[in-house]
Amino acid sequence: MTTEWTHKDLLDVKDLSREEIELVLETAKSFKEVSARDVKKVPALRGKTVVMLFFENSTRTRASFELAAKRLSADTINISAGGSSLSKGETVLDTARNLEAMNIDAIVVRHPSSGVPDVLARHLKAVVINAGDGCRAHPTQALLDLFTIKEKLGKIDGLKVGIVGDILHSRVARSNIWGFNKLGARVTVCGPSTLMPPGVEKLGIKVTNDIDELIRESDVLMLLRLQKERQENQFLPSVREYAKRFGVNQERLKQAKKDIVIMHPGPTNRGVELSAEVADGEYSVILDQVTNGVAVRMAVLYLLLGKGKSKVEEGNV
Amino acid sequence: MTTEWTHKDLLDVKDLSREEIELVLETAKSFKEVSARDVKKVPALRGKTVVMLFFENSTRTRASFELAAKRLSADTINISAGGSSLSKGETVLDTARNLEAMNIDAIVVRHPSSGVPDVLARHLKAVVINAGDGCRAHPTQALLDLFTIKEKLGKIDGLKVGIVGDILHSRVARSNIWGFNKLGARVTVCGPSTLMPPGVEKLGIKVTNDIDELIRESDVLMLLRLQKERQENQFLPSVREYAKRFGVNQERLKQAKKDIVIMHPGPTNRGVELSAEVADGEYSVILDQVTNGVAVRMAVLYLLLGKGKSKVEEGNV
Amino acid sequence: MTTEWTHKDLLDVKDLSREEIELVLETAKSFKEVSARDVKKVPALRGKTVVMLFFENSTRTRASFELAAKRLSADTINISAGGSSLSKGETVLDTARNLEAMNIDAIVVRHPSSGVPDVLARHLKAVVINAGDGCRAHPTQALLDLFTIKEKLGKIDGLKVGIVGDILHSRVARSNIWGFNKLGARVTVCGPSTLMPPGVEKLGIKVTNDIDELIRESDVLMLLRLQKERQENQFLPSVREYAKRFGVNQERLKQAKKDIVIMHPGPTNRGVELSAEVADGEYSVILDQVTNGVAVRMAVLYLLLGKGKSKVEEGNV
Repeated sequence: MTTEWTHKDLLDVKDLSREEIELVLETAKSFKEVSARDVKKVPALRGKTVVMLFFENSTRTRASFELAAKRLSADTINISAGGSSLSKGETVLDTARNLEAMNIDAIVVRHPSSGVPDVLARHLKAVVINAGDGCRAHPTQALLDLFTIKEKLGKIDGLKVGIVGDILHSRVARSNIWGFNKLGARVTVCGPSTLMPPGVEKLGIKVTNDIDELIRESDVLMLLRLQKERQENQFLPSVREYAKRFGVNQERLKQAKKDIVIMHPGPTNRGVELSAEVADGEYSVILDQVTNGVAVRMAVLYLLLGKGKSKVEEGNV
Repeated sequence: MTTEWTHKDLLDVKDLSREEIELVLETAKSFKEVSARDVKKVPALRGKTVVMLFFENSTRTRASFELAAKRLSADTINISAGGSSLSKGETVLDTARNLEAMNIDAIVVRHPSSGVPDVLARHLKAVVINAGDGCRAHPTQALLDLFTIKEKLGKIDGLKVGIVGDILHSRVARSNIWGFNKLGARVTVCGPSTLMPPGVEKLGIKVTNDIDELIRESDVLMLLRLQKERQENQFLPSVREYAKRFGVNQERLKQAKKDIVIMHPGPTNRGVELSAEVADGEYSVILDQVTNGVAVRMAVLYLLLGKGKSKVEEGNV
Repeated sequence: MTTEWTHKDLLDVKDLSREEIELVLETAKSFKEVSARDVKKVPALRGKTVVMLFFENSTRTRASFELAAKRLSADTINISAGGSSLSKGETVLDTARNLEAMNIDAIVVRHPSSGVPDVLARHLKAVVINAGDGCRAHPTQALLDLFTIKEKLGKIDGLKVGIVGDILHSRVARSNIWGFNKLGARVTVCGPSTLMPPGVEKLGIKVTNDIDELIRESDVLMLLRLQKERQENQFLPSVREYAKRFGVNQERLKQAKKDIVIMHPGPTNRGVELSAEVADGEYSVILDQVTNGVAVRMAVLYLLLGKGKSKVEEGNV
């Protein structure tokens, strides 16, 4: 592979070419092997500093990035919205500029407002990695999902992918739709009409409200987390009603293809988006997604932090 | 010593044989020397990942484990109940399974509910270390207490140990009683009858409510922290009354043996369980306990993380 | 330079001789170069443990110290007031004594009460570094300010320095006044009379309430953060009034010397102490201060942690 990585930041899958996505997935393959070793550590980013700047709570995404950075031997700093001068009314950009002045190399940022990572990227020389912004994008989630599907099914091209749930508010769905489109999978989204963005078909995807038909046709079924707040905000009649109409259980899965892949970005609401049996069952790759998340984030950090102009060189890994 | 360490996890002193306890203490001795060096670091666990998963606040236990892991060159990740997707209603086991999927090697868990570490241990391949669960067990505290006594008095066997305070709610007391029983010390517990578990004698120990007699007879006196909430919950008439009846001060200590050892797991309530003079006095080993805590936790991490099938090898330490 | 560093702790600029301050600045120069490298890491403090003990929120000071320690290869532990047994009513000294018992090497402490670092320093063998105590002292801030001025203007001696704002409550002002006095700069303070300490002239400085005259005369203008709480507490008629009377904007700066240096310890209130144009303008060294903060804190950690009896030796950096 001779693709070169040219982006300063990782903000959205939308910005990446098919070749660039494939470069990330290829690079992640080498790094997945590192986390399976007895000594899970390579010196690739020794002496680099990666800041985790999280304005929303997150166990797994923060831990995944932090582990990825540490396994590359980078130093890490955690800054969360509580316990920082952010409570003194400083703007996000000001905070980031100050961190940059400390010669940090990368900022991994999660923020409830869409577009915040782009603002930082535009003003900073440091690398900015979007770890989820508002309802807009969560690129490393999409990349790890693509990695997991390719690992399980050997390809992305030509696959039929169903995405089920709250498409309207989901940065995971948005980033994955971009990724699937670029790699040649055909996406159908499914969910309550109140949680479907108007004009979603313009993204080049199909829409259905028949979960059973979707299950029969799909090679991959991606279930989105249902935020219980949606019910309070009247997007949903009730969580129970949602579970009955869109929840995936063993009974419904009987209609599926034999090698269907069931995905969920986590954390799951067992009994809502899917039954416990399905979550822990033979088709579920939910924990593989988590495992692959570390590898993909190692790849992203590696490609962005200056060593990734071409493929991973053997000597470094 | 030819004992081999065979446990996957450390959940309770109850599960350990006398020989296994002694192996931990012996191993800790080598590691205590590491923390006294100018360069307090050995490469034993390089490339391993240890997660601190704390659902209760803790300065010293968390810091002690984190330092222990770092001095063994492991990478560490901190996750506390606030600031995590735990607030999204994910179960503890789900969180732990996700961490495990990230190829972490050990989870150090503290939780207000008894038995949580056992549930994790049963379902995970990763090492689980109980850093305190509910009122049930706090095994590393008992091990560091045993280490400290052996260091001060040269032996455990045959010693008379008094444990004073809220036995009913104390995981420290429970774990220590197991440890003392296994190593041949004779335990007497003392405290308000409302804070004494019914049938505590069945654990093979004696009960008294005469603190002065206990002081006269004991080689070791272990004072437990009094949670002030107990008063509100009507377990206690008043903290002042408790201090008067069970608090250890210089006057009372005059009756003690010359080389009595005064212990407290901390944090102390000065003026309640013991006077400031006693806490800082010549018999107190409270800060030794803290020092030894790091060494014992290094030993536990070392034995559990796969290098500890036999004794510490010279080359690694 | 043959000055030797003899202090166990860094509590206040007041305690340092001119030569000692210059030793810090000289040492920081070597370390600034480290943070500009591709591999920002030297082994100077490998195997040392530095604890960040913060009882007040702080993004930048905590991050700056943490980065400084990590770039020197020390291990770091974060302890903040929430999430610690401090909420169990343990005294600060007790906490610190416990940390010391874990063989940590240095405690970096920030506390809302003046004098807390001194109490710790008096009772501990471990190194204590004051990262800001109440309204009293913030020595590393003053040292990084001196470093920045020297870097920009080539000297401190003989400079005219204006400090503007809430002198009464400012530990930054206090520490800087000590530093400027010792290095031969002449300080004039300026601000609302309600925010001026009575008898401030006794510190050997001048007082004015004419910001325009101060701007015309100063080589260096240091603006202090205005705490908005001051208005509620009736120290100030209104923030808007303050901004109008003491805020520095482009218009006002036209009267200044051509190479005036504008400083602010951050975080800034844009539109209050200074306009956005001035904060981002050609005279502002605000982000240089942040960059230099890491270098100065590396120097301080290095000098205090036992290798700094004389100058930095080449081999270590």
